[in-house]
Amino acid sequence: MSQHDAVEVITAKRDGHELTDSQIDWVIANYTDGVVADEQMSALAMAILLNGMNRREIARWTGAMIASGERMDFSSLSRPTSDKHSTGGVGDKITLPLAPLVAACGVAVPQLSGRGLGHTGGTLDKLEAIPGWRASLSNDEMLAQLEGIGAVICAAGTGLAPADKKLYALRDVTGTVEAIPLIASSIMSKKIAEGTGSLVLDVKVGTGAFMKDEARARELAETMVGLGKDAGVHTVALLTDMSTPLGFTAGNAIEVAESVEVLAGGGPADVVELTLALAREMLAGAGVTDVDPADKLADGSAMDAWKAMIRAQDGDPDAPMATARESHVVNAPSTGVLTRLDAMGVGLASWRLGAGRATLGDAVQDGAGVVWHARPGDEVTQGQPLFTLLTDEPERFDRALASLEGGYDIGDGARFDAQPLVIDRIA
Amino acid sequence: MSQHDAVEVITAKRDGHELTDSQIDWVIANYTDGVVADEQMSALAMAILLNGMNRREIARWTGAMIASGERMDFSSLSRPTSDKHSTGGVGDKITLPLAPLVAACGVAVPQLSGRGLGHTGGTLDKLEAIPGWRASLSNDEMLAQLEGIGAVICAAGTGLAPADKKLYALRDVTGTVEAIPLIASSIMSKKIAEGTGSLVLDVKVGTGAFMKDEARARELAETMVGLGKDAGVHTVALLTDMSTPLGFTAGNAIEVAESVEVLAGGGPADVVELTLALAREMLAGAGVTDVDPADKLADGSAMDAWKAMIRAQDGDPDAPMATARESHVVNAPSTGVLTRLDAMGVGLASWRLGAGRATLGDAVQDGAGVVWHARPGDEVTQGQPLFTLLTDEPERFDRALASLEGGYDIGDGARFDAQPLVIDRIA
Repeated sequence: MSQHDAVEVITAKRDGHELTDSQIDWVIANYTDGVVADEQMSALAMAILLNGMNRREIARWTGAMIASGERMDFSSLSRPTSDKHSTGGVGDKITLPLAPLVAACGVAVPQLSGRGLGHTGGTLDKLEAIPGWRASLSNDEMLAQLEGIGAVICAAGTGLAPADKKLYALRDVTGTVEAIPLIASSIMSKKIAEGTGSLVLDVKVGTGAFMKDEARARELAETMVGLGKDAGVHTVALLTDMSTPLGFTAGNAIEVAESVEVLAGGGPADVVELTLALAREMLAGAGVTDVDPADKLADGSAMDAWKAMIRAQDGDPDAPMATARESHVVNAPSTGVLTRLDAMGVGLASWRLGAGRATLGDAVQDGAGVVWHARPGDEVTQGQPLFTLLTDEPERFDRALASLEGGYDIGDGARFDAQPLVIDRIA
Repeated sequence: MSQHDAVEVITAKRDGHELTDSQIDWVIANYTDGVVADEQMSALAMAILLNGMNRREIARWTGAMIASGERMDFSSLSRPTSDKHSTGGVGDKITLPLAPLVAACGVAVPQLSGRGLGHTGGTLDKLEAIPGWRASLSNDEMLAQLEGIGAVICAAGTGLAPADKKLYALRDVTGTVEAIPLIASSIMSKKIAEGTGSLVLDVKVGTGAFMKDEARARELAETMVGLGKDAGVHTVALLTDMSTPLGFTAGNAIEVAESVEVLAGGGPADVVELTLALAREMLAGAGVTDVDPADKLADGSAMDAWKAMIRAQDGDPDAPMATARESHVVNAPSTGVLTRLDAMGVGLASWRLGAGRATLGDAVQDGAGVVWHARPGDEVTQGQPLFTLLTDEPERFDRALASLEGGYDIGDGARFDAQPLVIDRIA
């Protein structure tokens, strides 16, 4: 592995050349081992961000990150596996009803999730609002739960793609997060190492998404679908709207409650629509085409899978969850139709209320968050509640209110055009 | 100084924006103090390399690096000061005869020099071949020598532009050396902090130079002249050819000997030409126009200044210097006119023979180097000595010979066109 050196690899990319397979393997393996220093990798990441990588380079980079750690193997399971990844959105609780729903349809869902950093919230943070629930499972516990119940949502172990963990932390402090080759390889290295048989990607586009711009979101989706295909994982991406937050809640306990409404056959129409669209893709990817997931929401079997999944991880699905000690209501300033509700404003407000964290290691408040009482297209009356802000710490209201300012429009309704939630499908 | 953060500054340059004065001041001060980490500065350096900086940004960056340390002050001297900087070339011993020559003309030369790294050799390494000579002087010693003798060549103290020292070491390992804004600000921050009244830049272009390409060398020269002007230092640059090495020697003791030949009124024509051209610019920059430096070589006063300068730093200018224990002669393979002698090949050979070092801290051999017995335009006869390779360690000959391979051409002479040594003057 000593046939290259870091400066040679950096200058090759800096000068606009393709990196060879051997250069990529060398730099990832040696970065993982500490031979390539952080300051060298950050210079390379900046060169990649500005000069790009082609499909071969991205695939090799992803493969090298997978090879830096262990791989999981679900081939011993009696059912096929399918997983979902979202690039992150506001009010995006879809994983919570989706995993047990797909399990109820006969496909196992090995959902390794993360914690939230910034305005989009984290799936594990939401589930930890359920009394007793634990995020960490051993590989054996995970396999047993997948075989017995069919759904598991847990923390990713430290053994998968350690190069990615190291590189992700570095990118965060060096202005190199926004490189599509690095985003795509980061996501896909973990999903491929996890060993899922098929994968559905929910690539968000809009103000509340990481990708504000549809062209870049599409490029990211196409890059990831290509990586999945190259690695033999059946991969489909849905491009979905994140200019408006999903459902009526952003937070932790309040998003769990909204997810349970969906599992009970109710819930917000957009959350149900996206849950079913993703479930159908996951089932099709696993070769299951004779089950309609809507039936499993209606007949209670998705709810049964949810409760079993929560109990298997020591949670009590029927216990009351934390509620915020303080609330603040924002009333509608005029009468008309809500024509815009900005996902970023809502996401920042929820984060500032304590539902999210500023740095990894911070605690989150289970009860904090934002409830909005109307969605775009709904009529509102002057003086009716428009937002309810929730937190344990009332000094947080001011900054949360500031982030909602200018984040919505109330118009006369004639000009309102609903945008489709699923913008495109990329396979 | 907490009004910025590193990611903000990095992403601004990454996205092609101009950095503000405040951002530049903040990032340099905080990098010097360790608040901005190496991995952040290397990402910023790569963004600067790929996206550039304009004249205002480079001037501010240079000013911030000067402000990171101390400044010297020569205003108490009874004579004007002028300094010279070369971007580095093979056989470039010009500083050695130039400093005492200019001193003999009545202008003080405060020449802070470095050690060699790579193929171009270092002025201090050459002078250390003189028995007893020491490179380190206190500021008081330096001032006294400038007043009494008028010339000093010594090591730069650690107090000048510490931000540059830190950044230079970082750039070396992160593939970010070749950024003109960073090269120009690195050179000029030290020269401006040093406090010279005027400055002449010898910007080399050609195979043996850092800049192989005339357009880039010209851009570097223009950038540095602009920085000098902005800082109130009278600055002129000569663009000079470095496709052929200077003189007939590359090494340490052998370059000192060749320099002494020039001071004695002889020496290679090209070394004399460039020494006089640079001396005239230095004198003009200091306002001295009534002295012809050629007279000071002819009448022995430059030699007197040289001997006084060497003795003031405890060196014995008349003591024999080290000679290499082993030599190897390469004979001309054919008869004709030498039409090309590649500076890079000669420089690498000298470095590989032990005249230079691979990493800072390595020792160099005083007696090692390369002597060439013909220059382009000279007739050579098959079998006559073309190169003499010198080293204490005969196992070094093989690799040195390999770097000379293909490094010269012997032709019929009809096609030989001499290139001018001084290509252009930029003021």
